[in-house]
Amino acid sequence: MTDNTLLIKNVTILPMTDEETLIENGYIYIENGVISEVNEGLHPNHLNNAHKIIDGHKMVAIPGLINGHTHTPMSVLRGYADDLPLMEWLQKIWAVEGRMTENDMYWGSMLSMIEMIKSGTTTFSDMYYGMDKVATGVEKSGLRALLCQGIIEGDSNGEELLATTTDFVERWNKGANERITTLLSPHAPYTCSPELIEKLVEEAHRLDCSIHTHLAETRDEIAIISERYGETPIQLMDKIGLFTRHVIAAHGVYLTDEEIDILQKGKVGLIHNPKSNMKLASGVAPITSLIERGVTVGIGTDSAASNNVLDMFEEMRFASLLQKVNLENPTALTAYGSLTMGTSMGAQAVGLENNIGKIEVNKKADITLVNLSNVHLQPINDIISHLIYSAKAEDVAYTIVDGNILLENGHLTTIDEEEVFWHIAKIKEELL
Amino acid sequence: MTDNTLLIKNVTILPMTDEETLIENGYIYIENGVISEVNEGLHPNHLNNAHKIIDGHKMVAIPGLINGHTHTPMSVLRGYADDLPLMEWLQKIWAVEGRMTENDMYWGSMLSMIEMIKSGTTTFSDMYYGMDKVATGVEKSGLRALLCQGIIEGDSNGEELLATTTDFVERWNKGANERITTLLSPHAPYTCSPELIEKLVEEAHRLDCSIHTHLAETRDEIAIISERYGETPIQLMDKIGLFTRHVIAAHGVYLTDEEIDILQKGKVGLIHNPKSNMKLASGVAPITSLIERGVTVGIGTDSAASNNVLDMFEEMRFASLLQKVNLENPTALTAYGSLTMGTSMGAQAVGLENNIGKIEVNKKADITLVNLSNVHLQPINDIISHLIYSAKAEDVAYTIVDGNILLENGHLTTIDEEEVFWHIAKIKEELL
Repeated sequence: MTDNTLLIKNVTILPMTDEETLIENGYIYIENGVISEVNEGLHPNHLNNAHKIIDGHKMVAIPGLINGHTHTPMSVLRGYADDLPLMEWLQKIWAVEGRMTENDMYWGSMLSMIEMIKSGTTTFSDMYYGMDKVATGVEKSGLRALLCQGIIEGDSNGEELLATTTDFVERWNKGANERITTLLSPHAPYTCSPELIEKLVEEAHRLDCSIHTHLAETRDEIAIISERYGETPIQLMDKIGLFTRHVIAAHGVYLTDEEIDILQKGKVGLIHNPKSNMKLASGVAPITSLIERGVTVGIGTDSAASNNVLDMFEEMRFASLLQKVNLENPTALTAYGSLTMGTSMGAQAVGLENNIGKIEVNKKADITLVNLSNVHLQPINDIISHLIYSAKAEDVAYTIVDGNILLENGHLTTIDEEEVFWHIAKIKEELL
Repeated sequence: MTDNTLLIKNVTILPMTDEETLIENGYIYIENGVISEVNEGLHPNHLNNAHKIIDGHKMVAIPGLINGHTHTPMSVLRGYADDLPLMEWLQKIWAVEGRMTENDMYWGSMLSMIEMIKSGTTTFSDMYYGMDKVATGVEKSGLRALLCQGIIEGDSNGEELLATTTDFVERWNKGANERITTLLSPHAPYTCSPELIEKLVEEAHRLDCSIHTHLAETRDEIAIISERYGETPIQLMDKIGLFTRHVIAAHGVYLTDEEIDILQKGKVGLIHNPKSNMKLASGVAPITSLIERGVTVGIGTDSAASNNVLDMFEEMRFASLLQKVNLENPTALTAYGSLTMGTSMGAQAVGLENNIGKIEVNKKADITLVNLSNVHLQPINDIISHLIYSAKAEDVAYTIVDGNILLENGHLTTIDEEEVFWHIAKIKEELL
């Protein structure tokens, strides 16, 4: 018997270890935050030894969802700038961002964490400013996070930015009980010079950390980079060695076959953001080709300013449906395909596949329990289909990270929702 | 003081009478199922006279959502056939449909009505078999419905089908306290001969009823009809006089400029089904062009076999996002645009604009109250944006039809959910 044990019993388990495995009536035993048993039926000793027992009747346990690309503090801007041409949207957003304090960023980030916990996300990969504050929020919320300060070169001094950001990486890596992983982040090829990006890659080698960036998101980006450097963003990044480190690359909408080869050969986790790409009218990423050609692909929500929710169930649904209509092929990106992007392949995309993404022995106990009893899930003809094509945030009953219950039967355990909403309403009054 | 009065007080009202009007703190007074006052503040007499009072604090009242095209009994097939090529999908669905009893259809339809009530739909336009049973369900549920028996010519005798269906139209029109409107329904140009459709149009004139059909849904349909008759579906239907009656035409994915002109001149309400069109990989309907050219357009979910939910909030969200990405224009089909398709213009599309679709005096009291207090709606920067880009079924607190409360603070008042789920589980065991 160990210090901290959790038993989830009487539960359907979709471990995401392969397409066939589904345990219809089983249990998951968790010791000190790590999965120690996954099996059918019930081991009688566990009933006596577990400090805490969850009855998973009429629920399915899936690996906690992994939001591969977001900007959590931006949730204060939800619904603030919609249906606008891209440049007007950017200007409206930038104008407010320039006035945001680190305090605003903290509460925006907490708002996002509430939304993610309630919709079954256990890990998020965040890029923004004020990351010290966000890291503090992660400590409190209990979520797992990959955090980085996005660097936009602009007029500022690259060296100074580099010093601030490497300092953040060193201070917070393995923070929050090892739930925080820190990264370096050149914002995008059009906001950082190749020289600065090269330096960041060097630093990433020295610090042994990954890199998170935006890549090949819009036609404009391809045009700007091609004109500026005579190469596409992917070619340029390849030349300056970006893909020698593990890179979380958001978007990848405009990619040629040659560029897909580069991504496949490099250490790249591409993050697909279907709703943001649709709402900002960026385009449709070639997800089916990417996966067929062996690129690792995850899913992200992007920010609430371009989505406008941080709901991975909705994001996976959009991913499958968008590929189907775009390719005029109803078999494209199946429900199982999107679910791997949100779990097992998503873990690989953010570089945490040794720890999370599957429900199996020795993985961290990051688990989402989905209640199958709501009307839009009846009859239960196919659980995987239901998770992608029918499930909603409201179906999430339990969200568990490191064996700790962050959402218990729909109720938050680590964050005071009223306190966060009060601050958010105040920020809206003052800022927007 | 009248027999039956309902006051919704202290509520934000989005009447959908025009793009600007939003009443921030107002009330709606309902007498005998009809809206008799909509105003700011509160009329003191109403507090004394109302038989029932709803406190709409932190809620927005919108016209009840109108699902313009669905097949409610098919919800028993939710998740039963996904990610398949179209012909395999059809064969799998048809094989089960051939075995479905009227009893199965009744319970499938009740399952759909629960889902619609819980997601704020007040009117649905249904096409299927077993419509006598569905009509009985509508009587019980309290929803408003447009019902028709879909006619597929096949090997059967057209005359006989015609007799059965006109009998249904006459018996059930204005049934369920005038909440039921009956229609005639040739299933599609590829399943009915022009001769049969002509006869149905004649009958529709005689019975003074509308027609509900599928039109221009897939590339295959265009090819089949063009080869068979030397004309496109729209041209053929125009020639045989279909558009001389009011027609609810589902899909309209493949349309030329000339055909859009025909639809604009005819009495047509086109129903857009974005999720079904995406999931079955049919294509993207030219909704922006249709609206610009003056065609009346509503939104439908199609059936749960091709969606897989009947959630109009999600459907409106997909509508806006799909137009934006398809046209590479972030200003295409704004949030307000999609909301008109789900409410005021949707009412016009199904031919009920005199009775429903707006919150204004003398309209039937079909109203949905959306709770604005959940996390994914914070901060409340823009209510219309939030309704389309962020709101979920779980936010629906009250669904009201004819002034009767069908959903009260999230709880069903007219249907026993457990009873329906029990029958649905049994049907799944026996049928699938």
